[in-house]
Amino acid sequence: MNQSAHLLRYTLQLADNALIPGHRLGEWCGHGPVLEQDIALTNISLDHLGRARSLYQYAAEQFNHMPPEAQQPFFISPLLQQAPPPVDEDDLAFLRDAWDFRNVLLAEQPNGDWAHTVVRSFFLDSFHYFFFQALSTSSDETLAAIAEKSLKEVTYHMRWSSEWVIRLGDGTEESHRRMQEAIAALWPYTGELFRPSEAEEALEAQGISVPLAAVRELWMQRIASVLDEATVPVPDPGVWMHEGGKEGRHTEHLGYILAELQFMQRAYPNMEW
Amino acid sequence: MNQSAHLLRYTLQLADNALIPGHRLGEWCGHGPVLEQDIALTNISLDHLGRARSLYQYAAEQFNHMPPEAQQPFFISPLLQQAPPPVDEDDLAFLRDAWDFRNVLLAEQPNGDWAHTVVRSFFLDSFHYFFFQALSTSSDETLAAIAEKSLKEVTYHMRWSSEWVIRLGDGTEESHRRMQEAIAALWPYTGELFRPSEAEEALEAQGISVPLAAVRELWMQRIASVLDEATVPVPDPGVWMHEGGKEGRHTEHLGYILAELQFMQRAYPNMEW
Repeated sequence: MNQSAHLLRYTLQLADNALIPGHRLGEWCGHGPVLEQDIALTNISLDHLGRARSLYQYAAEQFNHMPPEAQQPFFISPLLQQAPPPVDEDDLAFLRDAWDFRNVLLAEQPNGDWAHTVVRSFFLDSFHYFFFQALSTSSDETLAAIAEKSLKEVTYHMRWSSEWVIRLGDGTEESHRRMQEAIAALWPYTGELFRPSEAEEALEAQGISVPLAAVRELWMQRIASVLDEATVPVPDPGVWMHEGGKEGRHTEHLGYILAELQFMQRAYPNMEW
Repeated sequence: MNQSAHLLRYTLQLADNALIPGHRLGEWCGHGPVLEQDIALTNISLDHLGRARSLYQYAAEQFNHMPPEAQQPFFISPLLQQAPPPVDEDDLAFLRDAWDFRNVLLAEQPNGDWAHTVVRSFFLDSFHYFFFQALSTSSDETLAAIAEKSLKEVTYHMRWSSEWVIRLGDGTEESHRRMQEAIAALWPYTGELFRPSEAEEALEAQGISVPLAAVRELWMQRIASVLDEATVPVPDPGVWMHEGGKEGRHTEHLGYILAELQFMQRAYPNMEW
């Protein structure tokens, strides 16, 4: 795979890591435990969708500039293969099936109870905080600009989810128990965040992708400090970790997300507002 | 609307009243409380799918024999409008959106806990038992034959769900409470079973459709006798009842069912085994 294919894969990986958790958070809309948090989550969800749009637009631009012989084998999903060119952001969001999605498995895990949602966000937001700091100095100017713009939002997201981890962890006996359960359940999905995909490895030498080992160190520090305040022990980083999302191998949950997310475009092909 | 359009609507109503509860029961596959019941439900689900197939085949035959000017406005869903003729059973199951489905709202209600699933089946199975007895003397020979064939299965289904209602209603304090909750929740969806659709009204004079008032009387007797044995009071038949499914106005649940049920055909158009 050549350089431009790697960059497109990497861009899609970042875009899917925004769309999929954005969709999950959007599932809370109208179901939040209190009105203020319902609206907060919906706002955070919209931030994710905004970031996803910027990244899909960049991915579509890259794809449309590829020679046909590179375009043809790039996606497996027949709906996208058959889409009339040029491909746009909506095509990338709505016409790819699971194997063409590159988000980490953590992002697609179900909302569960409030603690699960909060912990999933806490792990992802803390990752994205340090990740986008590093990406804002990427030698790819478009990615650097998107990272720069995302940082303000992600900083707020991380503050929001960290505060909830502390409030619940250091709360009642039941909230503490649920927080611990959620952390135990989702922890084995955090390893993949720091395991470079083929694209991430290929792009690091040119300073395009982010060195994940450094991000991991900062992330671990942050996690440890918040969990300490939440009176919850830090899980063992050496446990077996799930992986596969970055290479298109997903848990069953992604299929159900896509069935809902892509329903409209599939039932009413080529519809527009 | 002329006679042949009414017959097609009626056939689809019966078919959808098999497919949708069949899909709901299929959702339990691999999730049943004990292995034996998991398999029982999956078997019952397959009976429903078998009945749905016979009815969709008959509906497709009717549709394909209609003149083009009657076909064109019959379905709203664009995927079905655009399907290359002749239409077949799979097209009817997979290419219609919610407004073209005619099942009763009861059929699409969520599985909930075991009590909800059992009560939904109990209400529907008892209805279908008397309904198919009456339909087996229909002047439409195809419908009469399908009814005749379905009766043996439906008799078993009704026995299965009635036994569970009695076991749980006359069981522990908790199972009794849950049974009562499920009955209270689903009862307001039973009125629609006996409220004739436009098609049912139009076809009754020729002895094609079933006289629902008579079915209702038998159904009420059966429900009362089982609930009595289950030590659960019979709800007030005079409460306000939901309706709309028979005319294509559905609860939000049907959309989610169709998003999953029709995923494959939508993501991989015109796929075949």
